Amino acid sequence: MDLEQTLRVARGDAPADLALRNGSLINVYTGEIYVTDVIIADDEIIALGPGYQAREEIDLAKRYIAPGFINAHVHIESSMINPPQFARAVVPLGTTSVISDPHEIANVCGLAGIRYMLDVTEGLPLSVFVNASSCVPATHMSTSGAELDAAQLATLLDHPRVLGLAEMMNYPGLILGEPNVLAKMEAFKGRIVDGHSPGVSGAWLNAYVAGGVGSDHECTTAEEAIERLRLGMYLLIREATGARNLMDLLPAVTLENSRRCCFCTDDYHVTDVLSDGDIDHLLRQSIAQGLDPVTAIRMATLNPAEWFRLYDRGAVAPGKRADLVIFADLADIRPELVFSGGRLVAHNGEPVGDWPVPTVDQSPVRDTIRVDWDSLDKRAFHIPAQGSKARVIGAIESQIVTNHLIEEIPWENGLAVTDLERDILKMAVIERHLGTGNVGLGFIHGFGLKAGALATSVAHDHHNIVVVGVDDQSMYTAACAVGEMGGGFATANKVQVMATLPFPIAGLMSDQPAEAVVVAMDTLQKSAAALGSKLHDPFMTLSFMALEVIPTLKLTDQGLIDVEQFKPVKLFVE
Amino acid sequence: MDLEQTLRVARGDAPADLALRNGSLINVYTGEIYVTDVIIADDEIIALGPGYQAREEIDLAKRYIAPGFINAHVHIESSMINPPQFARAVVPLGTTSVISDPHEIANVCGLAGIRYMLDVTEGLPLSVFVNASSCVPATHMSTSGAELDAAQLATLLDHPRVLGLAEMMNYPGLILGEPNVLAKMEAFKGRIVDGHSPGVSGAWLNAYVAGGVGSDHECTTAEEAIERLRLGMYLLIREATGARNLMDLLPAVTLENSRRCCFCTDDYHVTDVLSDGDIDHLLRQSIAQGLDPVTAIRMATLNPAEWFRLYDRGAVAPGKRADLVIFADLADIRPELVFSGGRLVAHNGEPVGDWPVPTVDQSPVRDTIRVDWDSLDKRAFHIPAQGSKARVIGAIESQIVTNHLIEEIPWENGLAVTDLERDILKMAVIERHLGTGNVGLGFIHGFGLKAGALATSVAHDHHNIVVVGVDDQSMYTAACAVGEMGGGFATANKVQVMATLPFPIAGLMSDQPAEAVVVAMDTLQKSAAALGSKLHDPFMTLSFMALEVIPTLKLTDQGLIDVEQFKPVKLFVE
Repeated sequence: MDLEQTLRVARGDAPADLALRNGSLINVYTGEIYVTDVIIADDEIIALGPGYQAREEIDLAKRYIAPGFINAHVHIESSMINPPQFARAVVPLGTTSVISDPHEIANVCGLAGIRYMLDVTEGLPLSVFVNASSCVPATHMSTSGAELDAAQLATLLDHPRVLGLAEMMNYPGLILGEPNVLAKMEAFKGRIVDGHSPGVSGAWLNAYVAGGVGSDHECTTAEEAIERLRLGMYLLIREATGARNLMDLLPAVTLENSRRCCFCTDDYHVTDVLSDGDIDHLLRQSIAQGLDPVTAIRMATLNPAEWFRLYDRGAVAPGKRADLVIFADLADIRPELVFSGGRLVAHNGEPVGDWPVPTVDQSPVRDTIRVDWDSLDKRAFHIPAQGSKARVIGAIESQIVTNHLIEEIPWENGLAVTDLERDILKMAVIERHLGTGNVGLGFIHGFGLKAGALATSVAHDHHNIVVVGVDDQSMYTAACAVGEMGGGFATANKVQVMATLPFPIAGLMSDQPAEAVVVAMDTLQKSAAALGSKLHDPFMTLSFMALEVIPTLKLTDQGLIDVEQFKPVKLFVE
Repeated sequence: MDLEQTLRVARGDAPADLALRNGSLINVYTGEIYVTDVIIADDEIIALGPGYQAREEIDLAKRYIAPGFINAHVHIESSMINPPQFARAVVPLGTTSVISDPHEIANVCGLAGIRYMLDVTEGLPLSVFVNASSCVPATHMSTSGAELDAAQLATLLDHPRVLGLAEMMNYPGLILGEPNVLAKMEAFKGRIVDGHSPGVSGAWLNAYVAGGVGSDHECTTAEEAIERLRLGMYLLIREATGARNLMDLLPAVTLENSRRCCFCTDDYHVTDVLSDGDIDHLLRQSIAQGLDPVTAIRMATLNPAEWFRLYDRGAVAPGKRADLVIFADLADIRPELVFSGGRLVAHNGEPVGDWPVPTVDQSPVRDTIRVDWDSLDKRAFHIPAQGSKARVIGAIESQIVTNHLIEEIPWENGLAVTDLERDILKMAVIERHLGTGNVGLGFIHGFGLKAGALATSVAHDHHNIVVVGVDDQSMYTAACAVGEMGGGFATANKVQVMATLPFPIAGLMSDQPAEAVVVAMDTLQKSAAALGSKLHDPFMTLSFMALEVIPTLKLTDQGLIDVEQFKPVKLFVE
């Protein structure tokens, strides 16, 4: 809306589009809650107070009115659903803005993947901001689909929804002054830079902050959180599917330091969104733990708006975008009405009205499984017996770290094979970006399969195809199933595919609605359990077994990696 | 300093330049005070904490260490001293950054004046930021030296120390959507815009905020302050020489809303700086009134840094500019050491070390009194008697508003003349920018002179030469004295100049040190008192008698202005 019309409405010389009457306004600026009218025209809040005429009126009957919630850090791909479907899942829960790091799709599709995420979110009721993925690939000990240097990342700077640089996971690289990392910091000078510094402290943390990083979402203890707040970092309190830090960090939050605290979900499955909630869930938990509700709401609104310099939102005030959440109970926030840009977009948890989906060329993010299947058969999974003892990845329930085991491995016909009694299965990582034919092979303990195999194309951060199984035929069948779907999850037993969940977008995301994905996930988990899996979520665990930056022993398409030594190691030790 | 060296020092791999040991750090992020070391290299804070080596060490012995103070809004010209001298006056008091509006010099010299203020502050220990003066001239009912439209103001946007648009005094123009005002808002879209909206409330205030204004320093009551805070405006609490709002506004400040509150001095004479202090004075007063000291210090540091988007300052943390204030008593803040950009620049209230003064071409701001003195003599002050009753400006002690009086005026030889018994003096405004020959003439009550005249070239906002006196000869002598100095203050009696204070820079500022100006001011005030002045500061009062945007009756070079009708009026009424 042009400024002249804004002024006319604000003066009262022209009618507004919408008047929300008698709302209990949560004023994040003053910390007050008081009953007033919120006056909206087009996508903007024009005025607060009585006496305005409007074409449409809603009596809020003293229900609370808060700014739309802002998720300070999320990898949308990790939800397993495409951004437009992601928006339909989270907006009805009150989340109207997210700061996303398209790190997963960037590892598969490079800049084209990031451009896709920007294009497919254009004009959604969810404002999707993007921080440029700073660490693609994670290392050179695996094969990714792309490598993004400073010059490539800098091409994103012109986009109005690109804010800065996403989590600088290569904290040793920054702290030690690696030229390629410094080039990225230089390219994004004057922009915000998000951090990722688990366990970093003292002089190294000083260096990380002096180097230009302004936030962290990897704190797991109140002590870590306080050290970061004192140095001026924003604390992004994370409640992710596999990393739940909220309860541990809430004790660090005080009224005095809370202006520097925000909420985020990082890697968060759509299953959790539908069962627990999104930022609304973090608010409910925090308030139940005794955090002052207005302080909590500030952490979900004004504070992230300030950190990310989103001056047009984060509060209910004239000139701000009309992103609003209406609810009845401050002690148990359940959004009843959600407005995005002045438009009612959700009612009692369900999307309402017209949700336009941008028409986007999906070709750069489809058909991303580039494996020469003709030259691959089950023999690709053969491990020639070259010793009696081998390194075995020790998977741990609901953790992404592993143990580094040394185990006796049985032989059959000159091949090293699985041992179901001792839960020693085979694992393979099939390079799927460049068609190199790389297949990393090894052994893994902890999945408990008694038959069949599981395969996934979601495998942080390179997202090659990862398979775990009891026999080569099952592994081959599962891998082929993932390939045929263009990516996804599969279970198989011998030549039989048992269950699948296709992720046709970059091999990372479904194009189906959240509810359908949740049903399919349930079927898949049951199928895995029927094969003997004893893990709570074997696909989640599997997706981190190939991540060579998380200790201790991992397998990539280039072979076994001893993460503590940060170098490749041989499979057989004697 | 380059990033590599920053990182080396932060890691502890290279020595710092300076270690401030054992300071009681006022952490504005967390609200905590705790003892630690502050480590500095070049102009930057590199680290907090123990264990760092440095070339120079200072043991703070638990004295407090705070970020340098930020004055959120000041017209440096109104101090009466040139910016480098201004810096020498305020930096030793802890003020290391100011956001200035060069509105006065802009009215005299236009863009060249603003450029001068930027150039002459380059590299000073005081960081002088500039907001582009939004309302030059104030109106077209007086003659200014310049008119700045949106296109001219936009030429300033590239300068790294130009932040946004200064106080939008023409609030009716913005609220009513005047095209020239909207053009300025458009030119500064995405930048901060400071406000000026005395008494504006309700729908008009909503429009002012929706129109893009984000702060106000004109609140005089807690009620006004709270209305602005609720709408999202930053509250800049002003303690100016002629407008002391601190005591009235402090009751509006709470821990909850304080993050949106800052301190400023607006129009503040150097005499007050030297006698009372600068931002340190506001801090002492606020804390004495019971404001939490850390909250008060945040209002002088982090909060203005956030509003003005000065991400490199406002806190003591790695990566921030090393602007620091050291003091012993939190209840009575008296800066002992002041660091600017890592350099010790003041000790116990006195500047120390080398204070470079930029070499700047002063020609655009010198010789700005352009009056054809040859065609002017004392007859220029003659007022032909055209009626028995005339409008008389009613000056009020220590106020800038006036009364609109109607009084009998005595005649002598066909001329209307003064009446000392009834304290009715003559006032003249001599246009001094364009040589138009305009002389506005009228009568004024309240100055109390029994002989002589006072003249000044400081006359908001047009800064023409304003004279008040008992006889034409004295007025002529005083005006000529101001002209001969190239601007300034003068007192005269008949043909005798009594006392002067030259303002050779734009007719607004001395080029002498603060102390010399204070001595000269004292002499001038005594001279005015000897002539019969009964005002506390007749030059201050005089400088607002020609300001046609402040009620009620004012005189410009174009004649008498009825401010309530916002139009010229005749001198004689019958």
